[in-house]
Amino acid sequence: MQGSMIAVAKRAAGSGAELVPVPIPAPGPCEVLVKVRATAICGTDVHIFRWDKWAAGRIKPPLIFGHEFSGEVVETGPGVTKLNVGDYVSAESHIPCGSCYVCKNGQKHICADLKILGVDTQGCFAEYAVIPEACAWRNEPSLPLHIAAIQEPLGNAVYTVMEANVPGKRTLIFGDGPAGLFATGVARAAGAGPIWLAGTFNFALAIGKTMGADRTFNVRSPGVDVVRSVLDDTHGTGADVVIEMSGAPKAIAEGFSALRKGGTFVAFGIPSDRITLDLNNDVIFKGATIIGINGRLMFRTWLQMANLLNSGRLDPSPVVTHQIGLREFQKGFDLMTAPERTCGKVVMIP
Amino acid sequence: MQGSMIAVAKRAAGSGAELVPVPIPAPGPCEVLVKVRATAICGTDVHIFRWDKWAAGRIKPPLIFGHEFSGEVVETGPGVTKLNVGDYVSAESHIPCGSCYVCKNGQKHICADLKILGVDTQGCFAEYAVIPEACAWRNEPSLPLHIAAIQEPLGNAVYTVMEANVPGKRTLIFGDGPAGLFATGVARAAGAGPIWLAGTFNFALAIGKTMGADRTFNVRSPGVDVVRSVLDDTHGTGADVVIEMSGAPKAIAEGFSALRKGGTFVAFGIPSDRITLDLNNDVIFKGATIIGINGRLMFRTWLQMANLLNSGRLDPSPVVTHQIGLREFQKGFDLMTAPERTCGKVVMIP
Amino acid sequence: MQGSMIAVAKRAAGSGAELVPVPIPAPGPCEVLVKVRATAICGTDVHIFRWDKWAAGRIKPPLIFGHEFSGEVVETGPGVTKLNVGDYVSAESHIPCGSCYVCKNGQKHICADLKILGVDTQGCFAEYAVIPEACAWRNEPSLPLHIAAIQEPLGNAVYTVMEANVPGKRTLIFGDGPAGLFATGVARAAGAGPIWLAGTFNFALAIGKTMGADRTFNVRSPGVDVVRSVLDDTHGTGADVVIEMSGAPKAIAEGFSALRKGGTFVAFGIPSDRITLDLNNDVIFKGATIIGINGRLMFRTWLQMANLLNSGRLDPSPVVTHQIGLREFQKGFDLMTAPERTCGKVVMIP
Amino acid sequence: MQGSMIAVAKRAAGSGAELVPVPIPAPGPCEVLVKVRATAICGTDVHIFRWDKWAAGRIKPPLIFGHEFSGEVVETGPGVTKLNVGDYVSAESHIPCGSCYVCKNGQKHICADLKILGVDTQGCFAEYAVIPEACAWRNEPSLPLHIAAIQEPLGNAVYTVMEANVPGKRTLIFGDGPAGLFATGVARAAGAGPIWLAGTFNFALAIGKTMGADRTFNVRSPGVDVVRSVLDDTHGTGADVVIEMSGAPKAIAEGFSALRKGGTFVAFGIPSDRITLDLNNDVIFKGATIIGINGRLMFRTWLQMANLLNSGRLDPSPVVTHQIGLREFQKGFDLMTAPERTCGKVVMIP
Repeated sequence: MQGSMIAVAKRAAGSGAELVPVPIPAPGPCEVLVKVRATAICGTDVHIFRWDKWAAGRIKPPLIFGHEFSGEVVETGPGVTKLNVGDYVSAESHIPCGSCYVCKNGQKHICADLKILGVDTQGCFAEYAVIPEACAWRNEPSLPLHIAAIQEPLGNAVYTVMEANVPGKRTLIFGDGPAGLFATGVARAAGAGPIWLAGTFNFALAIGKTMGADRTFNVRSPGVDVVRSVLDDTHGTGADVVIEMSGAPKAIAEGFSALRKGGTFVAFGIPSDRITLDLNNDVIFKGATIIGINGRLMFRTWLQMANLLNSGRLDPSPVVTHQIGLREFQKGFDLMTAPERTCGKVVMIP
Repeated sequence: MQGSMIAVAKRAAGSGAELVPVPIPAPGPCEVLVKVRATAICGTDVHIFRWDKWAAGRIKPPLIFGHEFSGEVVETGPGVTKLNVGDYVSAESHIPCGSCYVCKNGQKHICADLKILGVDTQGCFAEYAVIPEACAWRNEPSLPLHIAAIQEPLGNAVYTVMEANVPGKRTLIFGDGPAGLFATGVARAAGAGPIWLAGTFNFALAIGKTMGADRTFNVRSPGVDVVRSVLDDTHGTGADVVIEMSGAPKAIAEGFSALRKGGTFVAFGIPSDRITLDLNNDVIFKGATIIGINGRLMFRTWLQMANLLNSGRLDPSPVVTHQIGLREFQKGFDLMTAPERTCGKVVMIP
Repeated sequence: MQGSMIAVAKRAAGSGAELVPVPIPAPGPCEVLVKVRATAICGTDVHIFRWDKWAAGRIKPPLIFGHEFSGEVVETGPGVTKLNVGDYVSAESHIPCGSCYVCKNGQKHICADLKILGVDTQGCFAEYAVIPEACAWRNEPSLPLHIAAIQEPLGNAVYTVMEANVPGKRTLIFGDGPAGLFATGVARAAGAGPIWLAGTFNFALAIGKTMGADRTFNVRSPGVDVVRSVLDDTHGTGADVVIEMSGAPKAIAEGFSALRKGGTFVAFGIPSDRITLDLNNDVIFKGATIIGINGRLMFRTWLQMANLLNSGRLDPSPVVTHQIGLREFQKGFDLMTAPERTCGKVVMIP
Repeated sequence: MQGSMIAVAKRAAGSGAELVPVPIPAPGPCEVLVKVRATAICGTDVHIFRWDKWAAGRIKPPLIFGHEFSGEVVETGPGVTKLNVGDYVSAESHIPCGSCYVCKNGQKHICADLKILGVDTQGCFAEYAVIPEACAWRNEPSLPLHIAAIQEPLGNAVYTVMEANVPGKRTLIFGDGPAGLFATGVARAAGAGPIWLAGTFNFALAIGKTMGADRTFNVRSPGVDVVRSVLDDTHGTGADVVIEMSGAPKAIAEGFSALRKGGTFVAFGIPSDRITLDLNNDVIFKGATIIGINGRLMFRTWLQMANLLNSGRLDPSPVVTHQIGLREFQKGFDLMTAPERTCGKVVMIP
């Protein structure tokens, strides 16, 4: 497709981003060009926007960033056999090599040579984006565009909760960012009970209640003691499952303290540094299992997510608090970085 | 405890049962005497009542039958260490030996030398019943008596659905007896979607809708084609999971036809005779897994059930359609055996 | 690559096969041309050779059949990115679509639209064969050609035994064809103990002993009672695991009889017709799990197989009893179809 | 049984132990008295002997310690129903309450109110010992006394390796104490390949070779780089499974570095302090699973161990380097605490 488009790009090392006109990209072999209908801002995008240490080490400008989106296939490259122009798709952001030991083992989502859309390749904060056919997920026509656009992060939560195996389990979730709020909804849909949600913003915790938390804790409020509360609610036993989506060292420590013997701790939130761990009491004597989660199963998680969404078991829409124009991207990042959180997921419409 | 009580008993071989006065039984070593507060009629009790071929071969009259109940511990035998007089309990009906290879392997519920309460031992259709301490389950005080009484069959459904691993899975359930209706509720609580329920009574299928079925089929209605409908609803793929709780050969056959390649078939319903199976197309080429279910895990299933009930994820009460007095037992069996079903679970209050 | 090659082909409907000169095929997009170094005869090839009912319904002549082989990549088609000329490869015979619900679920080996090499496409009983890049498995250089050629059927056994989860388990295997003999070796390597192997040919059962069976049974010998023997060897408990690789209805029935309560039955052998099953006593009351196996995981099974072979844990060579020239294919089929078995796996060298 | 016996006891706080005459204990309800035929020294016993910080906080003298043994039942207490005088038994050292949430969940080995034989109760470094019937394991008569005596620690290794799921997996084991050497043997029996074993004593590593390690590393030798070697041996991929049985922080760190993406890390060795962990790179981005192991499944592990031993798949005897008299206990502790290790497992015969 000829012509130019607007895109939100990092033109050089440093903080911020710019709205720039660029040529519409052309799909290469086994790639498709997608007209972006809705795209969402991820915490990773905030890291890139702010140009923190991680971003400075990983990102090679110029880069159009963004990796969560939905849209319509408008052109197919050579060798594309499964997708057609007009298909309504979302993108899996993990681009696997397909041939390493890890991929061969059925774990493409953590490929040993993993590339990430909008991080290692040109992303989707634009009117058009190119993705590998192998990373396109075809949506049901009835799925709203803004919901289709947040399936990548929702999929993280689906995968995390499925690995935690929560039906009939007492479940403690840390983190009231979109990941934790999505996980709350998925855990509720999957029969976790009770669900405790610990976070730091009343705005977000209220959404957490809507998503299905039985009890929420603002850990910055005086007198709140998550571990004590969970133990009290369980006759001293503790949680069967802890889902850690905050990355806060204090949350990680409290999670292990609140976990019952023989319980499961699922680690998704990224701490900013190494942590210390009482391996003896928190893992070995406790007989605990820790599961590290990155990405989503390709594509078992997407199938389960589709079934949850299409059957109405899961409604993630309360988490999508804002829809703005792509040109208003600065407003989106302002929302995402405000000291007091007043947003869940921010979706931009090109 | 001295004195006599009334009980519903089979005094000799043959159909029917009688209300008889008998001495209150005394708990032996490691046993407890429970005052029965609510007791429910199981399909197995109907077999015993009718004195069919299975019953004639297994039951040794005189027998007080019944094995689903809740009540209060009123006396403890020697060696009882975990229970106290006044405890509010329900009974696990499977009485394992505890020392065979199967029990040692953590599968007590299918002990190689299994005894069943009210089948191989005196049961609970009475004012009092004796059970092994090891088979008593302590309830939350808030659990209603009639719900506590139906946990044994509800536990079958919980175990069945947990083994089926349904979150985010397309689930087809056969059987609109209490087992199927309970399974529908558990599957809904655990995030199955969509849920199809096939049965034979409009009365029961309406309860199934209340329990969470997205679509129900009365297989006796003209033009109903369960397999075709499931395939149509899934773009030809089929169900991820089939839960068979009817025992009907036609349901078993249709279940395999509706199951997708790589799916899971859970077998709980008891056919009256051997079945024929297309092992090649239904199991081997399909890469299917078949899981036979009998009883409930002791006591992992009970823990999960308690969490589901106590957190409100699961409400089985629509299935409990009748509460009558124990002295009205004949009315209960009439309901259970009527040609056109107008009951779900019938609970009797001594 | 220009030129012609010889191939063993079915030119028209009917029994037998012919050695024919045909043009060397050209690899299409995402395909590679492989010079066949060793190719093995499968039971499926015997069905095709004999032109039985199954073959008549499935095979569309003219067809070069054969699907088990090893060789060297000599040409790559457009879009091939992972393989190079000179690579030493074997073929996965299952050709998945990659985009159906089953493939998306990580179960490509039982793709809903599965094609099989040498059955639905031109096969490898030839000097050269074309396969999709996605079905090529790169071998360690140290792996002998004839072992590399039998990895497809060996992989069936690896997958079957891995699903059966045999370490420290009492394991009964039915079938003394190559599948059963391979499974015996894999089970031995994976710590099954004891291993009973039941078959019909003394020649094959002797190989089974070499592969690691602790005790073998020729079920055609007078007085042999597999079920009784297994029960006697286990204090009446039975086998933890039954691996059925014969397809004989009698073996299937005996397998369920010998299986302990709570055991696992893995079904791989293909009966020639529907079977009858005592679902109640063999599956439901027994709390058994039945796992249907077709193909091999792509490519988790291949990785495990490579580790077993490369570390020396598994030596399948006793099963490869014959190596002949491709031109001697008639001798190979004679061996495979003799009333009294005197071969294991027959490998042909082009 | 009347009379007195000799026992190795800690009479008061402080290092060392004494040989003392004490009355033969009497079995209480549901307990049995066992004549000790062989008893082995555990690392835990060394902690008690030395009276380190852990011991000072946990042990209440006077105490007969020791918890690994085999022997013969010579007297049964009231309520014992499964065991008889003359039974040849070994002891499970974990004494569960049987009624807590964890026990009810089928995880008795990590009971929330766990007691340990010879730590919280009187142990087996004596001529006789009392154990709960529920902790007795009946041995095959053919099992040698000294092997029967070391099943408790061998069971740790069996459980650890079974959880690691090693068949066809590249397996790295840290620790050349008895736990690591046993795990090496179990991993070999269960089809791990290759097996790397890292330790600190050439004497022990030589036993590790006998037990089945393909390659051993003495980490105190100059130039040894375990991580680099494992990566080199696996084309840079790393180990599928890491089994950590040393408790050394360096081993834990190296274990995570050598683990492939998507691999499994099993933690059994007890570090003396908190560890630091790169949760991001070692667990989350890696998609790793960490499994904490304490004890053995009651009694699934014992069944698997019995099958491994009785079928000859596993021979732990090379690890049992010394058999001495119980009166020579000081020699045993000298061996266990020597700066340069010259023993594996030390068994004492009363």
